[in-house]
Amino acid sequence: MRLFSWGLDEQGLRDWIDRVLDLGITSFDHADCYGDYGVQAAFGAAMTPAQRERVEIIGKVGVMLATPGNPGTSVKHYDLSWDHIVGGVERTLRDLRTDRLDWLLLHRPDFLMDMDEVAEALGHLRDSGKVLRFGMSNFSPSQMRLLAAQVPVKLEANQVQISLEHTDALADGTLDTCQELGMHPMAWSPLGGGGLFRGDAGLDRLRTALWEVGQAHGGAADQVALAWLLRHPAGIRPIVGTGRLDRLAGAAGAASLKLSRQDWYKLLAAATGSEVP
Amino acid sequence: MRLFSWGLDEQGLRDWIDRVLDLGITSFDHADCYGDYGVQAAFGAAMTPAQRERVEIIGKVGVMLATPGNPGTSVKHYDLSWDHIVGGVERTLRDLRTDRLDWLLLHRPDFLMDMDEVAEALGHLRDSGKVLRFGMSNFSPSQMRLLAAQVPVKLEANQVQISLEHTDALADGTLDTCQELGMHPMAWSPLGGGGLFRGDAGLDRLRTALWEVGQAHGGAADQVALAWLLRHPAGIRPIVGTGRLDRLAGAAGAASLKLSRQDWYKLLAAATGSEVP
Amino acid sequence: MRLFSWGLDEQGLRDWIDRVLDLGITSFDHADCYGDYGVQAAFGAAMTPAQRERVEIIGKVGVMLATPGNPGTSVKHYDLSWDHIVGGVERTLRDLRTDRLDWLLLHRPDFLMDMDEVAEALGHLRDSGKVLRFGMSNFSPSQMRLLAAQVPVKLEANQVQISLEHTDALADGTLDTCQELGMHPMAWSPLGGGGLFRGDAGLDRLRTALWEVGQAHGGAADQVALAWLLRHPAGIRPIVGTGRLDRLAGAAGAASLKLSRQDWYKLLAAATGSEVP
Repeated sequence: MRLFSWGLDEQGLRDWIDRVLDLGITSFDHADCYGDYGVQAAFGAAMTPAQRERVEIIGKVGVMLATPGNPGTSVKHYDLSWDHIVGGVERTLRDLRTDRLDWLLLHRPDFLMDMDEVAEALGHLRDSGKVLRFGMSNFSPSQMRLLAAQVPVKLEANQVQISLEHTDALADGTLDTCQELGMHPMAWSPLGGGGLFRGDAGLDRLRTALWEVGQAHGGAADQVALAWLLRHPAGIRPIVGTGRLDRLAGAAGAASLKLSRQDWYKLLAAATGSEVP
Repeated sequence: MRLFSWGLDEQGLRDWIDRVLDLGITSFDHADCYGDYGVQAAFGAAMTPAQRERVEIIGKVGVMLATPGNPGTSVKHYDLSWDHIVGGVERTLRDLRTDRLDWLLLHRPDFLMDMDEVAEALGHLRDSGKVLRFGMSNFSPSQMRLLAAQVPVKLEANQVQISLEHTDALADGTLDTCQELGMHPMAWSPLGGGGLFRGDAGLDRLRTALWEVGQAHGGAADQVALAWLLRHPAGIRPIVGTGRLDRLAGAAGAASLKLSRQDWYKLLAAATGSEVP
Repeated sequence: MRLFSWGLDEQGLRDWIDRVLDLGITSFDHADCYGDYGVQAAFGAAMTPAQRERVEIIGKVGVMLATPGNPGTSVKHYDLSWDHIVGGVERTLRDLRTDRLDWLLLHRPDFLMDMDEVAEALGHLRDSGKVLRFGMSNFSPSQMRLLAAQVPVKLEANQVQISLEHTDALADGTLDTCQELGMHPMAWSPLGGGGLFRGDAGLDRLRTALWEVGQAHGGAADQVALAWLLRHPAGIRPIVGTGRLDRLAGAAGAASLKLSRQDWYKLLAAATGSEVP
């Protein structure tokens, strides 16, 4: 959540959470490092106990930014040691003023992660009830496979970059391996970097295709872009980054757009610049 | 089969089938979309019941061309839905005037294929006796692995592009994964695009190597190119695309050429432009 | 071992082995093709029976060079046939004047290796006691996976190129797959091609980072480069290529340098030119 750029005070954020819940959106995507390690505390201060019971919180740990909010770090790195996983989750729970995360995702593959250590940390968090479901983010197929083989905790999600502007995950094994291992992909930046809607050059063909498919289905271009993700059989869950309620309402409406196979491939062809071979 | 470019009428095609069988070649590679969805009906009209008992028919479904022969399709796409797999096989059987396919290959990996749906479709075709053996075509290692893990039907082949002009499958995991999963590769365009024999520039070194190895073994260049595939331990079956009986006779003779390891690597070096590292 | 470039006579080599053992280094990395198929005989002539009991010998077979030392070969190729694996090991044992190899590594992936044949060859070498432990070298993830699935002999190592100058193995699945399959990576050229220490342009940033980390830990740059490998959880064993005792002493000392995660990522960023994403 890029919450700090939305200009909400505590009451404003509390109201915003209610409005989002009213739209039928219940998942809130967090990470300890968002907002220079400050977003979670702001969210936790605003969220009421009643809201907590209605929301699903996705937490992430493992990214060590070299920023003022993370003293002692001079080089950006990843840390999936026992201390950092467990300590990171405990800080997250304190900041969010809750006793459990619905999801914990390992934020980035730490090249130095030791499988036994990760297994122990996740097992501890599961057994203590601090985390209900586990997954990862930005893991490659071989990293997914390694973790799934060696960590005796059910891994149910991999949050990766996938959108009509970044279609690599379709063919590089990421979505295939998610399906094989029983993980649901979550999509970060599901609308690309936003260039699509700012009118960036080079995206005209895709913009036109989104508009055409949208016309046929009675949906807006951003809804079609999300429906394109929802159509994939891996069960992709788009993580929408906006705080604007109108956009979130639109996103929630995307689920009702049912694209045909032909719509889907038309959008893919427009995105990649060529039809399938 | 690119049958329509061979200029055969029904009786001519019937005779051609006999001649091909006489050469010891018994497999005929079909796909519903070949000849703009027309080749199979022409083949079926020509093939006699006696011929049917002697041939092995490879069928493929899943490619939706945006052509006159496939009305309603405006964007080339793939379709491995239950309806299209089962419906496509039933059309294929009708067109070929037979009651079974010896092989069904899923022609292209449909990004939207649902594993449960594919599993049910293949199971139905197996249980009904309409298809005897199953495989796929142009599937990547992760796609092979996904299908093999989730579809409880024996998958025995992957037809991929592999030849001395396209050697990627050797090192990109395709042939390794075929062997690991017990699938036999079939090779489409096993002689490359034909540029080798038309004298295309850039292929001189390979052409020379084929000629030299051919001289040593008493074989023609195209036979050596096929023998190169046959030498691989994965059990590659080349799918020769020509209708010319002299070429087919040559192809059938390739099996008797036994290349040494050194011959094989000499051809590979000539094809890739450098010796192995 | 690039032994012939070190200018040692038989007694000199014998003394050198003692000195190396005194440093606590006990593994000696051989291959039949090193020194144009001559290094092993020179090493075997020098090594005393007492030394043999103290050393661990890594042998490799499978590379067929087109050199005077390998008559009959006109094209560089690989050969992992039964004859070449078993024959190669027997020649290696004769040359080294020993009755067993502590390790046998298949030197390069032979595209023509037949899994059944490899399985039989390795099984024979294990059962006859000629080889104690098995592995491979330069195998890709899919090649590792194929061999591990089909060869019923425990495979415990893959010797690959990995260093701060060649970091591909970190992210291309090589180290992940080693860990998944229980193989230890060995690192060849663990200090890169040596350009780092010759002052090659383009490596300034890495050289500076090595120096800085070394200053903080009281180690030399080459020790830090080895400590960087040792820090990885896959259990990388660096194969140091030098014959210089001062350098080997330094290498042996690298094990005492314990890099922090931040040190490690700082070196990676310096090596690749950018921080992790």
